[in-house]
Amino acid sequence: MITDRFIEKIVETQNPTCVGLDTAFEYLPEEMRAGVTDFRGAANAILTFNRNIIDSVCDIVPSVKVQIAYYEQYGEAGMETFRKTCAYAKEKGLIVITDAKRNDIGATASRYSAAFLGETAVGENRAAAYPSDMLTVNGYLGTDGIAPFLEDCNKYEKGIFVLVKTSNPSSGELQNLQLADGRTVYECMGDMVEQWGSGSVGKYGYSAVGAVVGATHPEEARVLRKRLPHTFFLIPGYGAQGGNADMVRACFAQGGLGGVVNNSRGILCAYQKRGGTYAQAAREACLDMKDDLLSVLGEICAK
Amino acid sequence: MITDRFIEKIVETQNPTCVGLDTAFEYLPEEMRAGVTDFRGAANAILTFNRNIIDSVCDIVPSVKVQIAYYEQYGEAGMETFRKTCAYAKEKGLIVITDAKRNDIGATASRYSAAFLGETAVGENRAAAYPSDMLTVNGYLGTDGIAPFLEDCNKYEKGIFVLVKTSNPSSGELQNLQLADGRTVYECMGDMVEQWGSGSVGKYGYSAVGAVVGATHPEEARVLRKRLPHTFFLIPGYGAQGGNADMVRACFAQGGLGGVVNNSRGILCAYQKRGGTYAQAAREACLDMKDDLLSVLGEICAK
Repeated sequence: MITDRFIEKIVETQNPTCVGLDTAFEYLPEEMRAGVTDFRGAANAILTFNRNIIDSVCDIVPSVKVQIAYYEQYGEAGMETFRKTCAYAKEKGLIVITDAKRNDIGATASRYSAAFLGETAVGENRAAAYPSDMLTVNGYLGTDGIAPFLEDCNKYEKGIFVLVKTSNPSSGELQNLQLADGRTVYECMGDMVEQWGSGSVGKYGYSAVGAVVGATHPEEARVLRKRLPHTFFLIPGYGAQGGNADMVRACFAQGGLGGVVNNSRGILCAYQKRGGTYAQAAREACLDMKDDLLSVLGEICAK
Repeated sequence: MITDRFIEKIVETQNPTCVGLDTAFEYLPEEMRAGVTDFRGAANAILTFNRNIIDSVCDIVPSVKVQIAYYEQYGEAGMETFRKTCAYAKEKGLIVITDAKRNDIGATASRYSAAFLGETAVGENRAAAYPSDMLTVNGYLGTDGIAPFLEDCNKYEKGIFVLVKTSNPSSGELQNLQLADGRTVYECMGDMVEQWGSGSVGKYGYSAVGAVVGATHPEEARVLRKRLPHTFFLIPGYGAQGGNADMVRACFAQGGLGGVVNNSRGILCAYQKRGGTYAQAAREACLDMKDDLLSVLGEICAK
């Protein structure tokens, strides 16, 4: 069960951190960018960068989140780098989250699910094009748009994270509106997530259907943590977006369980502030982030 | 201005139809599937099929909608077919809508927008990886997740369609909930769309920011058509999903303007019911659909 495995890796590393491989080409050191003039060259350089980051952090963090937009923009070369990045992270024992926020009607959602979580069959061959452990999805279409993902989660031991309260400044425009029944839109989405996960609760009490809850909105996080006891949180917004450990605390339950905090630029670009190689600086940033998170969460233990 | 061009093509063809290239490999005739055993083979066969469909219908319809999940599931080979399908449709003079329902925080949305609407720069080279005229997006994240798309729409004469009231059975679970202010969630999303489009209204009164409004929900469509006078509708759900011309009528304004109706399986798989070649059957299905739509809309004229 994927969330159980995830929690065990978090306890093992004592680091509820997800390294966000939102690897913009501009993030790479100048010497890696020099002379690169096409999508293929950019994609190759990003793959080298990602592999070195993964090598440097894979023993101290449980997971990576690979944001697909940063790869798709380089066409098939970028998608190849995306696929190889996910495969390399998996090879190194990391939980791989594809951040693609996919959503569509059932028939089409089943294709997205086949691409990332399940498998696509051609003749006798069956494979996922972009194998991932977990996938972010958008629940605006309701249950029948989520059902195909749930089916594959169940069949292939995968998980999803549904957008509930996102980290961006405008997230409240829709998400914080109050419904006639007294709930907010994000609470309503959270309730659907808890419902979608009700069939897959693992041994630590969390289901395979997680929620994206931004570190930048601690009030809402507090409400959601209490309201969604079986929902594991993917928490973006720490670092460059303004979230800090104190704000993140609201996303966690007793024993420091219940979520994983993503950091992208703060890790990938750490070398720009710290000096040294980007790989070494990324490792130091992960260790600092661990200390920062544990200073408010205490020792993380799965009961 | 993209929506003006779109409307002119609709008037010219007298056919507010969008051919949905949601080309599942299973839709292909048996002889095209025989002996295909890998993603590359499947992707190549789909490209051949798509090109023949496009050749057969490009003089009688204004647009195609290419649903990216059906390509992504075949990895880079599939994405190549997706890219070449879009390019071929564009070459044949069709308006190309990429149906990808993308959504993310601003910094990431700008990458998606670069992939489909704008451009990605590497060295001196600047290009979009997957050039499209219009892109479907999901507005759950609010204004700052939409802003990068609006910027590129403006800069490159492109357009977007935001999910407002989707065609699937569960769409009401969130979208039809009533807010404390009396609006439904879909009305609220519609109001945001109208606002996002306020800076780009073209000469026929419609902006570059359209809305996805399902043919399967005529009550909601009627409300939205009235409420969003400057918003052009992309209307899925006709045919296989249960929508018909009578239901679609609610999406259109005076003169038969205001939207375009998508049909995927009903066109791609027409040969299975009609016999003959798939390309010829697709053409006949498009002509029948035109007759069906015009029987309720009357002559389409842009004033």
